[in-house]
Amino acid sequence: MTFQPPAPLLPPQRILMGPGPSDVPASVLQAMARPIVGHLDPFFLRVMDESRDMLREVLGTTNTLTFPMSGTGSAGMETCIVNLVEPGDRVLVAVHGVFGGRMAEVARRAGAEVVTSESSWGRAVDVDALRAAAGGEAFDLVCVVHAETSTGVLQPLAPLRALADDLGALLVVDAVTSLAGVAINLDEQGVDAVYSGTQKCLSCPPGLAPVSFSPRAVERLERRKTPVQSWYLDLSLIARYWGGERAYHHTAPIQMIYALHESLRLVLTEGLAARQARHERVGAALCAGLQALGLKPLVPPEERLPMLTTVAVPDGVDEAAVRRKLLTTLNLEIGGGLGPMKGRAWRIGTMGSSATIANVLLCLEGLRAALSLGASDAAAAALAAYAE
Amino acid sequence: MTFQPPAPLLPPQRILMGPGPSDVPASVLQAMARPIVGHLDPFFLRVMDESRDMLREVLGTTNTLTFPMSGTGSAGMETCIVNLVEPGDRVLVAVHGVFGGRMAEVARRAGAEVVTSESSWGRAVDVDALRAAAGGEAFDLVCVVHAETSTGVLQPLAPLRALADDLGALLVVDAVTSLAGVAINLDEQGVDAVYSGTQKCLSCPPGLAPVSFSPRAVERLERRKTPVQSWYLDLSLIARYWGGERAYHHTAPIQMIYALHESLRLVLTEGLAARQARHERVGAALCAGLQALGLKPLVPPEERLPMLTTVAVPDGVDEAAVRRKLLTTLNLEIGGGLGPMKGRAWRIGTMGSSATIANVLLCLEGLRAALSLGASDAAAAALAAYAE
Repeated sequence: MTFQPPAPLLPPQRILMGPGPSDVPASVLQAMARPIVGHLDPFFLRVMDESRDMLREVLGTTNTLTFPMSGTGSAGMETCIVNLVEPGDRVLVAVHGVFGGRMAEVARRAGAEVVTSESSWGRAVDVDALRAAAGGEAFDLVCVVHAETSTGVLQPLAPLRALADDLGALLVVDAVTSLAGVAINLDEQGVDAVYSGTQKCLSCPPGLAPVSFSPRAVERLERRKTPVQSWYLDLSLIARYWGGERAYHHTAPIQMIYALHESLRLVLTEGLAARQARHERVGAALCAGLQALGLKPLVPPEERLPMLTTVAVPDGVDEAAVRRKLLTTLNLEIGGGLGPMKGRAWRIGTMGSSATIANVLLCLEGLRAALSLGASDAAAAALAAYAE
Repeated sequence: MTFQPPAPLLPPQRILMGPGPSDVPASVLQAMARPIVGHLDPFFLRVMDESRDMLREVLGTTNTLTFPMSGTGSAGMETCIVNLVEPGDRVLVAVHGVFGGRMAEVARRAGAEVVTSESSWGRAVDVDALRAAAGGEAFDLVCVVHAETSTGVLQPLAPLRALADDLGALLVVDAVTSLAGVAINLDEQGVDAVYSGTQKCLSCPPGLAPVSFSPRAVERLERRKTPVQSWYLDLSLIARYWGGERAYHHTAPIQMIYALHESLRLVLTEGLAARQARHERVGAALCAGLQALGLKPLVPPEERLPMLTTVAVPDGVDEAAVRRKLLTTLNLEIGGGLGPMKGRAWRIGTMGSSATIANVLLCLEGLRAALSLGASDAAAAALAAYAE
């Protein structure tokens, strides 16, 4: 019996308001459909240079070692850890959600001696508790998540930088969800290593993980006594491809880098400050509307992420059924809770191209209908907050 | 001073006859431009299932653990090694080109005790020498490259399977360049773990690494005493996303998987046997034409890859200048030599969509002009070999 191949794909046109991926602009999708060239083609080398320049601008850095890794955000996390950790190194991880926990796990697998301090999920890191966990001893790395996608919390970096200084450590930051949505300014904030993803506020499809290392982090790389445990993620090898030498390491994902190039172009054409302000206003509109519906955002206003709002599921509501209803009736995706918040929270993303007031109004109306709530002034509340 | 974003990308339309990426059909490029959906969207779950079914068909296997990893071919190599190796495990690697050497390096970094046996580059593995290197001791893995992209050699797998049986080892095969271009038939050949890439004979852009593990390999995974050193590549976690549980691990590269789906569809619509026969005829045509031009294929006919031909650079010729000339005058990419063959060989790919007699004739004519050779019957020789 001959195998019958399936029909060509005709994906539905969704509106993506989950925790990522976000909606992708048409010009980014079209960039992927442009002709492929070789990974050492002079044209592609220019694409690499331009992408790196734009990435530095968006990250707020002059770091030489700045480029996208050929994997998703989690590959970026692993890149930062395995390149900076040698067996027995001491790593302090602030855990206040799923992704902090993941950093600790990745560091353990890299042979680090890991100390964690768990703060309340849904709140910023308790830096005093983290300092106490460090016990006055020296550390090699302090790791923190800038925007916890599992809880919706924005973490101020200054107190972590101060703690890292006191411990003699480098500061490693997860900026998967924050990049291009809130200010990051690597150099100003003194971040030593950062990783991100493409499918959040950059509004590029998932598949690449931008990373950037400060000169101090590069120095640490160069002083290693043991090889990086991952050949695929070894920055000392990959930097020779992204640098002047253009030495082959692995075949770069050409089409994904076309998409990143176009998405960075759109970010910088909009303007980084304007894009961040848009995220701020749209996030505020969503929260105001949710509250007008009688729903409760889980994070206090001063610690909330503008691009990802977690909201409590009302008692007795089947949260998955609500999400299914939004998807089937409105083609609208929102996210469920992760880890201990599973079944108890929704995660509503307003990231990149998905961050529009129209999407917010649709989402509010959809939730009102799915939850069979009565008439409300949620739309008016959202519009008022958006206009502020 | 404000940063000025660069212009949108307008890539040249190349003809890719290097060692990969190969030309990508329009419908595969268009698949990437289709609307993005979430990584847990019911539509995407169907895309995953269909892609996995097609991948099994192309690999010739019923292996449950069969799916694309979110990285390029080298990530597939690392996946197979780090999931099957625990510190101190014994790994025997047949090295007869760059990629065998890379497997040995990856295994060392995973903590394996690695024994290698280096055969002549440009020839199949000397299995007797490999057996002698094993010294009659037990091994956990035997690793070999099916199609050495650095030399153009096709490696018969049966003698390696026999050796692995004698040593009590699993057989790990690099099928990056061979998949969909020559027969692989995993189950029939008794391959325990295989990895491939998308940018060779599948004619999909680079960015994914299909892997497949036999039940014995899965059993080995399940018996591990230590965690897999890479969290990103840990198959026990990723199998929970590709399996019925659909547990979130990392955000799948949606658009790349659309592209893989379409490229597998095209492979199976052409028919695997027909596609392999096409590679065979086009490869024979290229070799016949090159010989008519007076150029020397480096691999003996019975060990030659149909989809990648290595040919000696004539004495006194600047090989890079020839490649530049082909690129600038004909938009035609061919590859240079890798490792010790750098400067001494060209690598000409006839992979997937690039495997056409028209491309062969263009390449022959381009080389004739670039090398200032006189009139020749190379085209006639190629056409005759193609018709056979």
